Amino acid sequence: MRALVFDGKLLSLDTRRAEPSPADGEALVRPLKVGVCSTDLEICRGYMGFAGVLGHEFVGEVESINGPDTRRLVGKRVVGAINAVCLKCDMCRAGLSTHCRNRTVLGIHNRDGCFADRFTLPAINLVEVPESIDDDTAVFAEPLAAALHAARQLHVEGKPYITVLGDGRLGLLCVQVMAQLNASVRLIGKHPDKMNLCTKWGIRHRHVNEIGRRADQDVVVDCTGSAEGLELALQLVRPRGKVLLKTTVAPVERKTDLSPIVINEIEVIGSRCGSIPDAVAALARRQVDVASLISRRFKLDDGVKALQTAAQPGVIKVLMDV
Amino acid sequence: MRALVFDGKLLSLDTRRAEPSPADGEALVRPLKVGVCSTDLEICRGYMGFAGVLGHEFVGEVESINGPDTRRLVGKRVVGAINAVCLKCDMCRAGLSTHCRNRTVLGIHNRDGCFADRFTLPAINLVEVPESIDDDTAVFAEPLAAALHAARQLHVEGKPYITVLGDGRLGLLCVQVMAQLNASVRLIGKHPDKMNLCTKWGIRHRHVNEIGRRADQDVVVDCTGSAEGLELALQLVRPRGKVLLKTTVAPVERKTDLSPIVINEIEVIGSRCGSIPDAVAALARRQVDVASLISRRFKLDDGVKALQTAAQPGVIKVLMDV
Repeated sequence: MRALVFDGKLLSLDTRRAEPSPADGEALVRPLKVGVCSTDLEICRGYMGFAGVLGHEFVGEVESINGPDTRRLVGKRVVGAINAVCLKCDMCRAGLSTHCRNRTVLGIHNRDGCFADRFTLPAINLVEVPESIDDDTAVFAEPLAAALHAARQLHVEGKPYITVLGDGRLGLLCVQVMAQLNASVRLIGKHPDKMNLCTKWGIRHRHVNEIGRRADQDVVVDCTGSAEGLELALQLVRPRGKVLLKTTVAPVERKTDLSPIVINEIEVIGSRCGSIPDAVAALARRQVDVASLISRRFKLDDGVKALQTAAQPGVIKVLMDV
Repeated sequence: MRALVFDGKLLSLDTRRAEPSPADGEALVRPLKVGVCSTDLEICRGYMGFAGVLGHEFVGEVESINGPDTRRLVGKRVVGAINAVCLKCDMCRAGLSTHCRNRTVLGIHNRDGCFADRFTLPAINLVEVPESIDDDTAVFAEPLAAALHAARQLHVEGKPYITVLGDGRLGLLCVQVMAQLNASVRLIGKHPDKMNLCTKWGIRHRHVNEIGRRADQDVVVDCTGSAEGLELALQLVRPRGKVLLKTTVAPVERKTDLSPIVINEIEVIGSRCGSIPDAVAALARRQVDVASLISRRFKLDDGVKALQTAAQPGVIKVLMDV
């Protein structure tokens, strides 16, 4: 089969990759459409030390299931949670299975991803997509789940000031979700084209070079995907305020001033994956605009070019047809 | 008067410093005994960009007050809050006056400190010391307040595992306070002499080179005072756990890997000053052992040597008689 593979150094299309065979309880999935995430780009810069098939955003069709009790999904269109978990460790038993000690993560950690003709995931990870949601929309389930999760980590009351930092893929999803809270929300970005989407959505936005760094925001959500994002967030958030950190980057050599965390007693809260069923429900009721986020479409055969394109400044979401 | 001054480059005893005159509402205080804090040492490495008289841990006698309504304090032995605040800004009005936008901080930010024959503080900052508390004990009010504040920032239930990182001045206060919570508490340190105090107190302790980094602690309190402390804390704390950050250091050029914050969805919570009245109450009821923390005593005249001594590995608290 075809697969877009990062071998630890180079990204290339492997046209002779062996098809995976689903382990006990796993489904074999044929992806229909996949999305490129900044994490895919960071992996190509060394993040997570991952080597294998890239990709974790998909909508696909279940071809087969290795197990008795989940045959109901075969032939169905699905999206899915990307963490394959053991259900036995202390984290799983504590209800924190996204933090499973023994997890593998689709296209990120010890598990080949979805940028291929076939991939596998535990059947319990999969969620059927209602007919009302088309492929272009369904492929946003995973990043939207992450955005919804960020909002859920906040306890919003009294109309707080929330700044979303970063006008990229995740920032533009997060700001739409945050704008539906009882809060005063703005996006800080760098790219006029991307920020114009906020105008369309009725969400305030400013260029990063135009803002004061006055430590007056109750919450700052860092979706910059850059090592500088946290430091800017620490300048924007008020004392005793919260910084939600969505950015994961490979560490780089630099002077990082974290003293504002202590001096201003800020809470920095990491935020990763969310609930796929919740995201599907939100997509079904058209809670956010995802169509406007699609910048470019490629075929899997042009996967290398697709990832190069996704790394360009003006580009938001790049989709691939498999 | 005499004053221990850091001029931005060098630390020296100035014997001809002009005596400060208290502004409206301020008290003129004659320190009896003062303590050296790691923050004093960090300031001498450039932290906060401070220049002036060092020192913020003191017990002293009020010589005079510039104002009508606080004369009750004149002649009294006092300790005090180190943040001089405006009571007018948004933070003060929100009850967060330790984060006053216009604050000065004794010996740390825009206000000369207490390593001198006289210093000033707003009279409202001062708390009378009961006779039952001697000078050697009272001088710990400020760092003990910071330790009590850290415990107050946690919501402890279900006997969590708490690791206090760092066997320095603040770590040894924090671990005593934490050990009184309904928690399983241990100290991780580097210096056998300091950790032996934990044996005396019945608190578990381990050398940093002997511990597993298994991400299994519910809470880690970073009192290392080093830039590496946070990264070690991130390896020790469990997913969705909390890191209380007490360390403030001048930023240094290095690769800092903060991705565990996001991957493990950790809460990093900054922690600074606490309540002086609470600390005085805790000292009065002998809640913690501070006497064992006193390593060396100096005269103010030997202040430069006192700070050099406080920077040595085996030394805990250095006090100076003024």
